[in-house]
Formats: sequence, C-alpha cells, structure tokens
Amino acid sequence: MDQQTSGETSADNTVPDIVVARLPIYLRALATMQAGGKQYTSSQEMADLLGISSAQIRKDLSHFGEFGKQGTGYSISELHGRLRHILNLEHDWNLIVIGAGHIGSAVASYSGFEHRGFRVAGIFDNDPRKVGLSLGQFQVIDIRDLAFFVKQNQVKLAMITVPAPYAQGVADQCVAAGIHGILNYAPVNLSVPDHVNVQNIDPVLHLQHMTYYL
Amino acid sequence: MDQQTSGETSADNTVPDIVVARLPIYLRALATMQAGGKQYTSSQEMADLLGISSAQIRKDLSHFGEFGKQGTGYSISELHGRLRHILNLEHDWNLIVIGAGHIGSAVASYSGFEHRGFRVAGIFDNDPRKVGLSLGQFQVIDIRDLAFFVKQNQVKLAMITVPAPYAQGVADQCVAAGIHGILNYAPVNLSVPDHVNVQNIDPVLHLQHMTYYL
Repeated sequence: MDQQTSGETSADNTVPDIVVARLPIYLRALATMQAGGKQYTSSQEMADLLGISSAQIRKDLSHFGEFGKQGTGYSISELHGRLRHILNLEHDWNLIVIGAGHIGSAVASYSGFEHRGFRVAGIFDNDPRKVGLSLGQFQVIDIRDLAFFVKQNQVKLAMITVPAPYAQGVADQCVAAGIHGILNYAPVNLSVPDHVNVQNIDPVLHLQHMTYYL
Repeated sequence: MDQQTSGETSADNTVPDIVVARLPIYLRALATMQAGGKQYTSSQEMADLLGISSAQIRKDLSHFGEFGKQGTGYSISELHGRLRHILNLEHDWNLIVIGAGHIGSAVASYSGFEHRGFRVAGIFDNDPRKVGLSLGQFQVIDIRDLAFFVKQNQVKLAMITVPAPYAQGVADQCVAAGIHGILNYAPVNLSVPDHVNVQNIDPVLHLQHMTYYL
C-alpha cells in the first residue's frame, strides 16, 4: 500500500492516513517552538505557522483524544510528548540506506535524523568498488549481507537510493529480509506486500505539482 | 500556502490540491508504461500499479474533461500528453539549487530531471570557499548574484538545500528575486507570500509517518 497517495482509511485503523501524514508536521513545528523556549501554543498559531486551517488541526488531533484547554491552548511539551507516543517515536529506530551514490551518501551523512527518532545503522551497495569504502562515519556494506544485518540489528526501515531499474529488486530483498517500511528515492512505483508501507520521495513529483500553479 | 499539506481548494481554482498532487504520479506511471512500449491502459491497471483506487483515478481525471473510451481504456500517449499540458510541462522549466552541501550536490547531479520538464540552471552558495568550485557540470555561483541570475534566466523554481537556520533568509531572497515555487529540503516551515508555493521534502516526516504503522 502506498500511504503517501492514499486518502483512504486502512481496514485495521480508523484514523485516515492523510491525518497520520500531518502528525509529523505538527511534531516538527512543536519541536521548533520548544527549542525556542515556548511553553504554550494554540491551533490558530499552529495554523498560521503551517498553512493548515486551525479547524483541520483541531479535527486531526481529536482522533487521538482530548488535547489542550479552553483559554490556555496546548502545552507544547505535553502535545509533543503525546504525538511522539502516537507515532511510536519513544525509542529510536534503526534504518538502513541502500545505494551508496550521491543521494545515498547525502542521506547517510544527514544530521537531521538526530533527536527525531532515527539512526542510520548501515549503508549498502552491490558495487564491489564501493563495498568497504568509508562514507562519513560508515563503511559501505555488501548488499549480500543485507538479510543478516537487518535481522541482527532489528531494522524495520530502509531507504532505497539505487538507480530506478534496480529499485524493485532491492525492494524485494528488503521485504524478504523483514523490512516493514521503505522510503523510496527511485522514481518508480514499487510493488510490495500489503504489510509493507512505501513512501516516495521524488523531487520531480513536487516540482510538477508546483508547475500546475505557474 | 503549503500545497503539500493542504487538502483545500484554492480560491482561484476549482480542482482540489490533493488531486493536483496525484497527477504527477499518474504521469510518472504513464511514462514508465510508454517506455515499455505499451499503448493502452485502464484505471484498474493504474490502480493496481499505484495503490490508488480505480474510482479515485477516474474521479481525479474527470476534473479535466473526458478521458478514455468504454472498452478500450486510456490511450497512454494521449493521456500522457494531456497531463503534461495540464501540469504546464510542455516546455522545460529552469530551476536553481541553493546550498552546495551534500543534498545540493546530489540534487544538482540528479539525472532524474531530464525528460520530466526541468533543467538545473545553476547552484548557489554563500560560502566563499565553495563559490567558483566545480560541482559536476556546474560552477557554484555566489548567492549575491541570485537576483540577477533569476531574472536573466527567467527562473521560477528554486530548491533550498541550506541548513535549517538559513532557510527562511534564503526563501526571502528567492521571493524577492521573483521565484514562485520553492522545494524546501530544510526541516523547517517557511513563511512566504500567498503567491509563492512551497513544497517540503523532509525524509523524517515520511519515516515518522511510517512508524505510526509499525
């Protein structure tokens, strides 16, 4: 299932996926406010910051119970903590990067994962000229060791940054190894079993979305 | 306005933004089919490929007129051409990359823009140690030359790949220079005037979306 593009509710869960997709955006805004020393916020303030209506924000949060008080608004630290809990971010998740090219290297050295629930555990490639090379703090691992590594390190998430023609094959290997979530940077649609969640990052999709309005 | 997170219809346009967001996904699938030599497809076949329901696909396309014939389905080349027209992709758009770090370098050398409507026209940085350096086929340009370059090359689109604390300042410079669409890789929410469209690429948002289901 492709959670990015589906607005439908999955059978085993009553919260629409489009609502789930907005929670990380709220969490990011709350973390920024918290870092700035702020203690309280309101749906209106978040709305102004995010370009999402305050009614939408209140409705989204109402799926998960009661938040905030009439008059004082939301406690930032409390709402931040509850969103972290809802999104299963109370412990860090190991993730792997497959493909040690430009994008893979950039992702592996990305500092933005810290304190946001993720840790790059390893980066893989199938090119013998890349395997063993140092890439930032990592040494590129042979993709043949993928299944062993995933089990050993209880990895559930993978980022696929290989060229398009190889992406489906790599996705199949990930699924066979026990990966449950794939962040796909290759500009192709991946076929995966229902229990695996795929999200796609393709800058061209975003750019083409914007040119509609130009 | 943040088109990525808003499901609302903008005042001057009757097509919901969430529908516009799916058109590039359809276009990508059609291009793949076309490259494979296929001539016709159906909403059901696209649905199976994309994990979007066939009813949703038909409803999305119905915003833009009549497509396909009962029995034979969609002509791939015709639907592809009409989507390109709807998304204003009949000529290539110049875009600039601001920030010559890991992500900026990866994006500037990304081959996936070709034949999809975009051409990287230049990459900018404010670091004197980077300005003038070669980066793939590009020479890093001083950010002080941004406004001149944007006007000279009729650039409407910018990708911001600078560290988070600098992103808003760079966005302000882009807006002042005449940029209408920003693809923001910095993990912060940018404030821009209503006529500027911002889309965000933050892998952590996607990962946090997936951990909800783990």
